[in-house]
Amino acid sequence: MDTVGELVPPARILLGPGPSCVHPRVLKALATPLVGHLDPEFVRLMEETKTLLRFVFQTNNTLTLPISGTGSAGMETCLVNLLEPGDEVVVGVNGVFGTRMVDIVERCGGQPVIIEAPWGNVFTPDQIQAALTRCRRPKVVALVHAETSTGAWQPLQDIAPVVHNAGAVLLVDAVTSLAGCPLEVDAWGIDVCYSGTQKCLSCPPGLAPITLNHAALDLIRKRKTKVHSWYLDLTMIEKYWGEERVYHHTAPISMNYALREALRLVQEEGLEARFRRHQRNHLALAAGLTALGIPLAAQEGHRLWMLNSVRIPEGVDDARVRRQLLEQYNIEIGAGLGPLRGKVWRIGLMGESSTRSNVLLLLSALEDILRMEGYRCTPGAGVAAAQAVYAGT
Amino acid sequence: MDTVGELVPPARILLGPGPSCVHPRVLKALATPLVGHLDPEFVRLMEETKTLLRFVFQTNNTLTLPISGTGSAGMETCLVNLLEPGDEVVVGVNGVFGTRMVDIVERCGGQPVIIEAPWGNVFTPDQIQAALTRCRRPKVVALVHAETSTGAWQPLQDIAPVVHNAGAVLLVDAVTSLAGCPLEVDAWGIDVCYSGTQKCLSCPPGLAPITLNHAALDLIRKRKTKVHSWYLDLTMIEKYWGEERVYHHTAPISMNYALREALRLVQEEGLEARFRRHQRNHLALAAGLTALGIPLAAQEGHRLWMLNSVRIPEGVDDARVRRQLLEQYNIEIGAGLGPLRGKVWRIGLMGESSTRSNVLLLLSALEDILRMEGYRCTPGAGVAAAQAVYAGT
Repeated sequence: MDTVGELVPPARILLGPGPSCVHPRVLKALATPLVGHLDPEFVRLMEETKTLLRFVFQTNNTLTLPISGTGSAGMETCLVNLLEPGDEVVVGVNGVFGTRMVDIVERCGGQPVIIEAPWGNVFTPDQIQAALTRCRRPKVVALVHAETSTGAWQPLQDIAPVVHNAGAVLLVDAVTSLAGCPLEVDAWGIDVCYSGTQKCLSCPPGLAPITLNHAALDLIRKRKTKVHSWYLDLTMIEKYWGEERVYHHTAPISMNYALREALRLVQEEGLEARFRRHQRNHLALAAGLTALGIPLAAQEGHRLWMLNSVRIPEGVDDARVRRQLLEQYNIEIGAGLGPLRGKVWRIGLMGESSTRSNVLLLLSALEDILRMEGYRCTPGAGVAAAQAVYAGT
Repeated sequence: MDTVGELVPPARILLGPGPSCVHPRVLKALATPLVGHLDPEFVRLMEETKTLLRFVFQTNNTLTLPISGTGSAGMETCLVNLLEPGDEVVVGVNGVFGTRMVDIVERCGGQPVIIEAPWGNVFTPDQIQAALTRCRRPKVVALVHAETSTGAWQPLQDIAPVVHNAGAVLLVDAVTSLAGCPLEVDAWGIDVCYSGTQKCLSCPPGLAPITLNHAALDLIRKRKTKVHSWYLDLTMIEKYWGEERVYHHTAPISMNYALREALRLVQEEGLEARFRRHQRNHLALAAGLTALGIPLAAQEGHRLWMLNSVRIPEGVDDARVRRQLLEQYNIEIGAGLGPLRGKVWRIGLMGESSTRSNVLLLLSALEDILRMEGYRCTPGAGVAAAQAVYAGT
């Protein structure tokens, strides 16, 4: 067989839907020699990580830890532990990830009660209330906070009372939102929440932070059937990450080193400052794109700071533009998914990737490449509009 | 909240049941800045990894790839994809991991047909034949090649004909054996095989290499029900890792960098040389321990090279000895699991950890600490016996 050569990947600027750029300190943590997963030093690290995760989730939940899989494993963990056959789950479907939740609910034997919104739009408490009245005995309401496939930002502050009045728990997908915009698990009454590491935490993909409160844990403890998944069974994972330290699987040591360092960086910056940074760079990018005649695609007033879904201009070749950005500028942006394929680009400004330099470089590079595509716009208009936003803030 | 300090773990010598020591080149690969998971360069890396995995598994199976979870996720992937409710699975239970397979079979709705052997012993083809005759329509026979909890080495060469004659497929847990002792997936007629990265591949934990042949894939394609797990559904993962590159989850980029580099190191050493190294160091350790009066625990003639299960001498405090090894020598060895807790130590010589230096250091350190426990043995006897083995080979 042929010899596989040394690993020499290109130096990309990651402005897609994730992974985002990773801070050198996190890369250094990854390269740290390993201790065993039952080593007292690793046990200490597990405690520190749980504490830091509670901080970013803004929760006091005891059961707050990283699942040993990617964000989708976090989604599956939450659903597979909560659901038993026949359980009703109201799922908000307005993009890829709501659709995915329905799929998982069905695999768990649950009964999805689907509410739909156009891709790019969000749900109102009234819509959720209406869905709940259609249920006999709803167990879970599942919503996506930041729909990575559309750039839509679901408001969550007024949802929990509606859900709790119906006797259900609120489950939130915060894969893309965590550490990039406000998310207050306890204050907003979120019962179950999961995320991923490769978005606004700017850690490589591979872990899925989750948090569950007592109401959610009670549902798990009252199960009549075993959880379908052994690997994701929280009753065992809880003991592995808890004081008992009962062996379950072998935690991904290096990824946990990385997550701990990424969380330290979040703590050093401060949540509020980090949110403002994400907001400012989003506003600058949006102004720049608008000046180039490229409109944002998500519902006005509900546009994410960290994931900008933008309409591909008429007559412009989607794949060619993305390839040129990659080949000439080493910049990755994301393609549209599902019904938005070929219609939108997804520009991520997540975590370490959310910088003024990246915004200006992307606007400049995009203008250059669009012009090669025959697209007309005022030279320098994008960059000028973005700089005006920075000057004003 | 308190500030969490810089990551400064102690420099351990990992001689437990995994993780094993990681080569600096693999650590360097981990620290490499990321590309996106749909980047053409990452797609190329995926192909290279599949090729290298086929080499270590000794297979031509197209479906050979790393699952985005630890070894246990590999176990669950294989079972959850093969099994539908009611399916009969013969499971060999002679340690923790056979027990775990039974648990997962039950969660899949399958019917385990358990054959048991004392912990530390292995199964004969006749025992498997007898179990198969008890089945109505056996679908899978599941065996653990290297039982990490006991150190027992299950022979596999003569098993497949028995399994195939009964119309079943052979599923093998090679978490600890892969790249440490011979494993010939194609030549031995193994239909399904999974492993982990943190044992003899000497990569950090976090990925689970798997391989399935056409017979196994046919069973999956003929399913009447959806796979219980979305995250581990091979019909989708196959397309993500296949030519279609259909988005499923976000592959753990950094862990895949690491795995590729670890596999390159295996290829550079060569499988045969690597096996001989594991064998030689095992023989030296075994000779040294015997000279110290510490017998190996697994069935004679079926002792693993990479995981040595040894009887804790009478009157010696299990936990204290392990703690002293850790604190005074930075050496980790493993405790016994389940019924072997407090009765055995598990000394791993896996991948990068399997070196002459580690064998001699461990024998020397163990003798020192056992003497503090009041244990009597001839000074230097362990090291001398090990050196004699090295001199003779």
